[in-house]
Amino acid sequence: MISERVLKNSEEFWATCIPHLSVDNVIFGFHDTQLKVLLLQINEDRDWILPGGYVRKNENVNDAVKRVLKERTGADNIFLQQFATFGDVNRSEAFFKEYPDDLWHKQRFISTSYYALVDYTTVVPVTDEFSDACKWVNVEEIPNLVMDHTSILKKALEVLREQLIYKPIGYNLLPEEFTLTELQRLYEAILGIKLNRGNFYRRVMKFGILIKSDNVRRGGAHKSPDLYKFDQAKYHESLKSYSW
Amino acid sequence: MISERVLKNSEEFWATCIPHLSVDNVIFGFHDTQLKVLLLQINEDRDWILPGGYVRKNENVNDAVKRVLKERTGADNIFLQQFATFGDVNRSEAFFKEYPDDLWHKQRFISTSYYALVDYTTVVPVTDEFSDACKWVNVEEIPNLVMDHTSILKKALEVLREQLIYKPIGYNLLPEEFTLTELQRLYEAILGIKLNRGNFYRRVMKFGILIKSDNVRRGGAHKSPDLYKFDQAKYHESLKSYSW
Repeated sequence: MISERVLKNSEEFWATCIPHLSVDNVIFGFHDTQLKVLLLQINEDRDWILPGGYVRKNENVNDAVKRVLKERTGADNIFLQQFATFGDVNRSEAFFKEYPDDLWHKQRFISTSYYALVDYTTVVPVTDEFSDACKWVNVEEIPNLVMDHTSILKKALEVLREQLIYKPIGYNLLPEEFTLTELQRLYEAILGIKLNRGNFYRRVMKFGILIKSDNVRRGGAHKSPDLYKFDQAKYHESLKSYSW
Repeated sequence: MISERVLKNSEEFWATCIPHLSVDNVIFGFHDTQLKVLLLQINEDRDWILPGGYVRKNENVNDAVKRVLKERTGADNIFLQQFATFGDVNRSEAFFKEYPDDLWHKQRFISTSYYALVDYTTVVPVTDEFSDACKWVNVEEIPNLVMDHTSILKKALEVLREQLIYKPIGYNLLPEEFTLTELQRLYEAILGIKLNRGNFYRRVMKFGILIKSDNVRRGGAHKSPDLYKFDQAKYHESLKSYSW
C-alpha cells in the first residue's frame, strides 16, 4: 500500500538530508522492577519500529539523534550513547519494495544506533504526525519489529548488560541515596534474571564505587535499611585508570 | 596541489561506492613490550592517515572494512571489531578544499571505525598504489594525523583499555601457554603504564578465566615460571552471564 505521506516525505528528505545514513534510538525505561523500551507504531497500527530518522546536511550525527528523539517522542534532555552501526545490504530497502525506486527510504541505509536509559515515569511519549502510536513496551513482550530493528534492540540490550560490569549504570535511575535492594532490582531488571542477594552484595561492593550514607529514610514502620550513594569522584577516577 | 590520482579515483568511487560513508581501521600491533599502530603515509610523505576506504554499493559494511584493510596493507584474516562512528560536519571535507566541489572525497563523510589487535611481527605492511608508505608506529610516537584521525585513534585506544577489564584481550597475542610476566607486559603495553606485580596478579586471578598449566617451558637456565592458559569455556560463559 503506497502512502502519500511517505512520498511527500521522500521529496523533503532528498532536499534536506544526507542519503544512505539513518539513526535509530533504543530508549530503555526503568521504574521499580520493570524494564521497558520505547517503540513507535506506524502504518495504521501494523508495524512496530524503533524511533529513528535522518541526518540533515549540516548537522552532526550526534545532534541529529537528539533532534529525532525529540521530534518523534517529545522526549528531551536524554543522554544518548552511540553503541553500533548496522550496515548490511538490504537491512531496510526491502521494506519499501512497493514504492518507486527513487524513493528516499528505498535507498540503501546504514543506521548508526544510540541507546539511553531513563526513568520511564518521567518521559511521556507524544505521538507525532509520522506515527500512530508511541508506547513503552515491556522488554519481555517486544513484538516483531520491522527491518533489522529486532537485531538493533538485542545488541543495545547486550551492550547495556555488558556495561553493568564496569560502569555505574543507573546512576540517573535511582534516588541520590538508595538501598541495596533498590540497586539489586535495577540490576535484575536490566539483566532479566533474579540475583542472589549475598552474591550481589559482595560483587557490587567490590566495584568500590558505593559509599554508605549516615542518613536514614523516614516513614517506614520497620528498621530503616542502610542507604548508599555512588562515589562520583572514585567512579570518574576508575574510568580513567580502568581500575588498574 | 591537485593530484590526478585523486581525480581519477573520484570517478571510480562515484560509480561503485555508497557516498557519504567511509570506513577506517585502527590496527594495534603488539610484540614483546611494544604497542604500535599501523599508519599510511600519503601525498608524497607529507600526511599520515589511518588505513581506510569506502563501501561498495552491494557490500556489507563489515565486509568492506576487511577488503579495505587487505587492499591497503596486504593484511588478511584480521579480526576487526567495530567501535564507533564519527559523524561531525567538516570532519573530512576541508582536507580536499583545493579540489572541485563534485569530487567524491570532498563530500561529507561519516566514518564507521574498526579496531584490531595483532602480533605485529606477523603482519608485513605492503605499500599499495594509493600510499607512499605503510608503517608500524609506536603508540608513544604517533605523528599528527589528517582530518579527525587522531580522535579516532584515541577513541580506539580508550575502548581497547576499557575492554581489558572484562574481556580476555590478547588471547591471540600470547602463546597458548604463557607466564604471568608475559601477560603483565601485554597489559602494560596496552595501558601505557607500569603495573605493580602483586596487584596485577590478584586482579587478573579474580577474573577467573586463567588456568594454571602442568607444563613447564624448557630451555631456561633458572627455575621455570608457572604457565597459564585462558579458560575458553569459562570465558564464553562469563560473557553470556556477565559474571553475575
